[in-house]
Amino acid sequence: MKLVNLYNKMRPELVKIENQLQAEVDSDHKLLKQTAQHLLEAGGKRIRPVFVLLAGNFGEYDFTKLSKVAIALELIHMASLVHDDVIDNASTRRGYPTVKAEWDNLTAMYTGDYILARSLILITKLENVHIQRILSKAIVQMCEGEIEQIRDLFNIDQDLKNYLKRIKRKTALLISVSCHLGALAANADKQTANSLKMFGYNVGMAFQITDDILDFTATSEQLGKPAGSDLKQGNITLPVIYALQQTNKPQISKELIELIKSDDLANNVDKAIKLVKESGGIEYCQQLSDQYLDKAYAALKPLPDIQAKKYFYDIAKFIGQREY
Amino acid sequence: MKLVNLYNKMRPELVKIENQLQAEVDSDHKLLKQTAQHLLEAGGKRIRPVFVLLAGNFGEYDFTKLSKVAIALELIHMASLVHDDVIDNASTRRGYPTVKAEWDNLTAMYTGDYILARSLILITKLENVHIQRILSKAIVQMCEGEIEQIRDLFNIDQDLKNYLKRIKRKTALLISVSCHLGALAANADKQTANSLKMFGYNVGMAFQITDDILDFTATSEQLGKPAGSDLKQGNITLPVIYALQQTNKPQISKELIELIKSDDLANNVDKAIKLVKESGGIEYCQQLSDQYLDKAYAALKPLPDIQAKKYFYDIAKFIGQREY
Repeated sequence: MKLVNLYNKMRPELVKIENQLQAEVDSDHKLLKQTAQHLLEAGGKRIRPVFVLLAGNFGEYDFTKLSKVAIALELIHMASLVHDDVIDNASTRRGYPTVKAEWDNLTAMYTGDYILARSLILITKLENVHIQRILSKAIVQMCEGEIEQIRDLFNIDQDLKNYLKRIKRKTALLISVSCHLGALAANADKQTANSLKMFGYNVGMAFQITDDILDFTATSEQLGKPAGSDLKQGNITLPVIYALQQTNKPQISKELIELIKSDDLANNVDKAIKLVKESGGIEYCQQLSDQYLDKAYAALKPLPDIQAKKYFYDIAKFIGQREY
Repeated sequence: MKLVNLYNKMRPELVKIENQLQAEVDSDHKLLKQTAQHLLEAGGKRIRPVFVLLAGNFGEYDFTKLSKVAIALELIHMASLVHDDVIDNASTRRGYPTVKAEWDNLTAMYTGDYILARSLILITKLENVHIQRILSKAIVQMCEGEIEQIRDLFNIDQDLKNYLKRIKRKTALLISVSCHLGALAANADKQTANSLKMFGYNVGMAFQITDDILDFTATSEQLGKPAGSDLKQGNITLPVIYALQQTNKPQISKELIELIKSDDLANNVDKAIKLVKESGGIEYCQQLSDQYLDKAYAALKPLPDIQAKKYFYDIAKFIGQREY
């Protein structure tokens, strides 16, 4: 089954979510209305809402309850993206100009603040205190991850552990929380909720590793942003970390360090991509991503065989094969 | 009675609040720990906690409950200050280097996010849903106010209404919420809570207007930052708005507009200050501040004559007379 079928099937509910997102970010303030609208129009896969709704099927499915959690999560995600674009100095995301590019950094900062604050209103409307706390802790951890990312920019002394910790906070955490809270909002039992949480975590890790691979292997058209963007911005991802650590290929590591430390990395990013590919870093990352996907499948196993479980399998499978 | 007596009297509780603030912003992350610590050390009057605690005396005073509200409010305030410093390009605040100056803008952005997120955890720990919602709405309004401020930079077509709306969101709102929530957290009756809310709002307005006056009348030593800083950054406050509107003194308005529009405002800020003073803008603002203080006194009137009421009077009086 293809992922497009899942989206088709879920369309009526996703349209409702989209409308609710619109309503949530609405503001009397023209500028905020514009920037928030701009962000919504830029789209996205709305993967967090999809995960919340699917996870809700493992309990007493209640769209009204689930959609509040879904929207809060998507808003948190959107807020983090706007602030990330400031850090990454990104001018496009998914082929669409970023807020910082269309307006400026300060506007992007406050747009992020505003959207985070709007999610906060939604969170305080959730009656389940347990859910409230999981969400607020997740935001704290995301912030910690984001500030770590600044510290790690252009830092060539990173290792696997460091990288995994960062992508956990950056990506896997919120996807894990989406699955977890979808289950909790539907009053699923604890074991089910934990299985879904683990599924989300592992899928999220695989998703980000794949994202980091694609920055080296996909074309600019596929990415909606220039290939090699991460490295250009000093974001040292796993393919690079692997390449730097290959002591049996000292020439690759040496050249790569020179490129990263040079003032001219932006113009030589193709060379750097070539070196990373030669190091075997892409294959290594692919294996690691597959390991996470295996753990994701294993987490699903004990769950009842309902349609949502099949969709979760499809999503995990898609992540393993995606090329954009 | 002098304000210092109030602080002396409240010292044991304020020390506890200070320690709790420390604990709340603690992080495993060295950089966040440092920046948050730095912010705390920079100090401040902790006027929001003081207001929460004082307001709590009009109901069933419970320090544990009140301190949670107080700390959440102070964290929200701190988060907004860090982001404000990015906007204002401020290198010092209260004579202390800002996070953006000591580190950089990106670090300041994420420090603000982090502190806001920490306050969020505290908010979700408050059991009173009504309090939660008032707080989260206040954050949204503050963000709206902050982004308005960017829009209004160097904008000479502003009027009184515009200015009042902005300082309400920037300052008066959170002080008003402090008084309001202190009362609500202590289960004070609705009328009392509303009187305190009104008191806070009017005191907050007077406080900000006085702040904007002092930027023109105080010395750099008194301010802990260069005099005329607001205008230098393009922040058009009421003394300037008044000066620009004096059609009977067209020369002042003309010269002032030229200065604001010139590329060299930073070097000519003394001239601009002189023009504002000549326009009578300072006296006008002082009158307006006094009107707000009168309304603040009136809001206190119906409240029972307890010690906290006297302290609130003292604070209002202090704001009317302060010179730094």
